[in-house]
Amino acid sequence: MRRIFFVLVAVVALAGMVADMAPASGQSDEEAAPIFGIKIPPGYRDWSLISVAHEAGDLNDLRAVLGNDIAIKAYRDGTLPFPDGAIIARLAWRYVPSEENNKIFGQDQSFVAGAPTNVQFMVKDSKKYAATGGWGFAQFKDGEPDDAAMLDSCFGCHAPVEARDFVFTRYAH
Amino acid sequence: MRRIFFVLVAVVALAGMVADMAPASGQSDEEAAPIFGIKIPPGYRDWSLISVAHEAGDLNDLRAVLGNDIAIKAYRDGTLPFPDGAIIARLAWRYVPSEENNKIFGQDQSFVAGAPTNVQFMVKDSKKYAATGGWGFAQFKDGEPDDAAMLDSCFGCHAPVEARDFVFTRYAH
Repeated sequence: MRRIFFVLVAVVALAGMVADMAPASGQSDEEAAPIFGIKIPPGYRDWSLISVAHEAGDLNDLRAVLGNDIAIKAYRDGTLPFPDGAIIARLAWRYVPSEENNKIFGQDQSFVAGAPTNVQFMVKDSKKYAATGGWGFAQFKDGEPDDAAMLDSCFGCHAPVEARDFVFTRYAH
Repeated sequence: MRRIFFVLVAVVALAGMVADMAPASGQSDEEAAPIFGIKIPPGYRDWSLISVAHEAGDLNDLRAVLGNDIAIKAYRDGTLPFPDGAIIARLAWRYVPSEENNKIFGQDQSFVAGAPTNVQFMVKDSKKYAATGGWGFAQFKDGEPDDAAMLDSCFGCHAPVEARDFVFTRYAH
C-alpha cells in the first residue's frame, strides 16, 4: 500500500507539471456568458455524476448533472446552502432511439444520447451573485455563450426550490 | 502556479494517507460476483461519465455509464480493443416522473432518477477473461452480487457489438 501511495504522489506530481505547461483552456480564450460573466469551467466533463434525467416535450433530451468536488461534497454531506466555489453542470443531448439496442432487446425500448444540445452551469458565489440567491447562471451551445435574455429567466425559474438552495436536482444514490 | 502545484501534491498526499488508513471498502469485505469473481470497484460512483440512456419496457430505468480512467482514455483516444484494466460501470435508477419539475415546466415532461435498480460492471482482462472477449461481467443489487445464471447471458448479448470490443455505449460528446 505504501508503494502505491508514493506512485500515486508521483503520478499526480507529473500531472501537475503537465497542467502547468498546458494552456488554461476554457479560462482565458473563451467567451464569458453575459450578466454573470461565467466561462466554461475546465475539466467539467470529468466531474462526478449527481443524477440523470429525461425531459420530454420540446426539450426532448437526455441529461446528466455533474458537480465539481465542492458541489459533490455538499450534496453528500447535505450541506445547504452550497458553499462558495460549488459548480453544478447540466449537460444534455438529443433523445434518440437506438436501433442497435432495440434489436438486442427485441422491442423498441432503448433511447440514448444523440447530438449535444447545450451545457448549463450554476456557480456559487454568495457575494458576487448575492442578487440571485448566490448563484450565477450560464448556458453554452457549441462552446458559445447564450445571450442575456435567456439567462434573465434562470433565477426566477429556480425560485420554487429556494429551500434546496435553488437547486432542482437531487443526488442519485 | 507553482504554489498551487505544491498544494495539490500536499492535498493528494493527505488524501493518500487517509486512504491508507481507511478500510479498502468494496475490495476485501464484500462478496465477489460469481463466474468472473468481480467485486464492486471502490470509488466507481465518482468515475467520469461516458453517456446516459433510458430503457423503457420492463426495465423502465434511467441509466448512466461511467468509466475508470483507463476506460475513459480509451474512449477519447478511440483505442480498440480496450486495454487491460479498463472498467465500465452501468448505474440505473427507476424512471420516475417529477411532479416538482412538471409544475415548473407547466406540463408533464420531466422524468428523473428514482430508487437505484442495480449496478453492472465490465472489467477488461484479456488473459483472465479470454473466453468472453477479454471482459468479465458482474451485476450488483443493493451491494449484493447477482447469481451466475444472470451473468451467463452477458457475453452472448454483447456479441453483436464485437466490432466495438463488445461495448454498446458510445461516448457522449
